[in-house]
Amino acid sequence: MPNPTAAMLVIGDEILSGRTRDANMYHLAGQLTEAGIDLVEVRFVSDDAPAIIAAVKSLSAAFDTVFTSGGIGPTHDDITADCIAAAFDDHIDVRDDARALLQAHYDKNGHEMNDARLRMARIPDSATLIDNPVSIAPGFTVRNVHVMAGVPSVFQAMVATVLPTLTGGAPLISETLRIDRGEGDIAGPLGKLADEFSDLSIGSYPFQKDGKYGANIVIRGQDPAIIASAMSKLKAAFPV
Amino acid sequence: MPNPTAAMLVIGDEILSGRTRDANMYHLAGQLTEAGIDLVEVRFVSDDAPAIIAAVKSLSAAFDTVFTSGGIGPTHDDITADCIAAAFDDHIDVRDDARALLQAHYDKNGHEMNDARLRMARIPDSATLIDNPVSIAPGFTVRNVHVMAGVPSVFQAMVATVLPTLTGGAPLISETLRIDRGEGDIAGPLGKLADEFSDLSIGSYPFQKDGKYGANIVIRGQDPAIIASAMSKLKAAFPV
Repeated sequence: MPNPTAAMLVIGDEILSGRTRDANMYHLAGQLTEAGIDLVEVRFVSDDAPAIIAAVKSLSAAFDTVFTSGGIGPTHDDITADCIAAAFDDHIDVRDDARALLQAHYDKNGHEMNDARLRMARIPDSATLIDNPVSIAPGFTVRNVHVMAGVPSVFQAMVATVLPTLTGGAPLISETLRIDRGEGDIAGPLGKLADEFSDLSIGSYPFQKDGKYGANIVIRGQDPAIIASAMSKLKAAFPV
Repeated sequence: MPNPTAAMLVIGDEILSGRTRDANMYHLAGQLTEAGIDLVEVRFVSDDAPAIIAAVKSLSAAFDTVFTSGGIGPTHDDITADCIAAAFDDHIDVRDDARALLQAHYDKNGHEMNDARLRMARIPDSATLIDNPVSIAPGFTVRNVHVMAGVPSVFQAMVATVLPTLTGGAPLISETLRIDRGEGDIAGPLGKLADEFSDLSIGSYPFQKDGKYGANIVIRGQDPAIIASAMSKLKAAFPV
């Protein structure tokens, strides 16, 4: 049976403008691979409501699970929650359960609740909350879309909460062989290997170091024995 | 006049599986911002022909310029060139100009031309070649889509070739103010500032360090005087 599929939607201008380097895609990709869920597409869009709504609709329809990152804070550029509600024709307002979480947190820390902080309690009616052990303001899930914060420590905590609730497949195992020859020499035998082991995903990732060409050949699959068999044929074709 | 828009399409399983961390998006985002071209969307898709073709069609129609990264090498998993041809109903085969470039390179380096290397001369009929000073195998441009290698050194060289040929807008200038208060305290005044300076993009990027909350407020725009005016109002609202 094929693994469940997932997509990720990263929301925010700061990465598209080159100001910051995204960290959440790399984290989620590794976590999903371990869980046996195939990350099939990732999209980055800016803080633009029509773009966010269109992407949510499209990814939610095409894949089993969608993870979003970013845009659920208290400031004017945080529009993700309203866009999720709009994408699913859901009603959204400040919700008592989210407000209570925030109020208790602010009471404890001596901050006062204000309009901005209350924005973080805006949650679509049909959503279930995702726990935020780091800074309390919750994420939420609507249908197959898990809406999470962009701050990496919070994103990672929310992924850790959501992942165990999802049905995974067989974890993807991968083995890598570095071959210090140009891809042009590797490609012929590698293509034959890929034909022979059509259940495996065999990728070639070329590099250039100190003026020499090489490639890392990565064999991915779910059955360690089949991967080992392909790997031994690969090694035989390219003796060191 | 609004700036020209761009999208990026990153092709390949290696990033989606969490094996490698992408470097090309961050590079391109910075280069485009300097050139006054707005990077509006980035998509990552796997080595899957229907996914690549659909993404190329959609992004090419929606944005002024599209940059792709990955999948133009000699191995069986390099299917980008054929997908670009399919997306634009173009014919593709080994082209004499690309073959001549490769042949001269291999003659000089004592490698022999083979079927795999010849694959890198497969270029759509309507394409113009993009120079590859690093490893010779060319990228190419079809309509508004620039097809480039995934290896970062080659990708960067190709971006350097293509960018001067594009019409840019006014470079985006940004200034950042770090405010060591929680976003919940910042959001109210910041929202008012964003309303007042509606030509500027004002973003808030929260962080948490050593248990303390803060946010970097980034003001982006094209007119330094207007940015300076907004920045001085921001500083006045949050005196250190």
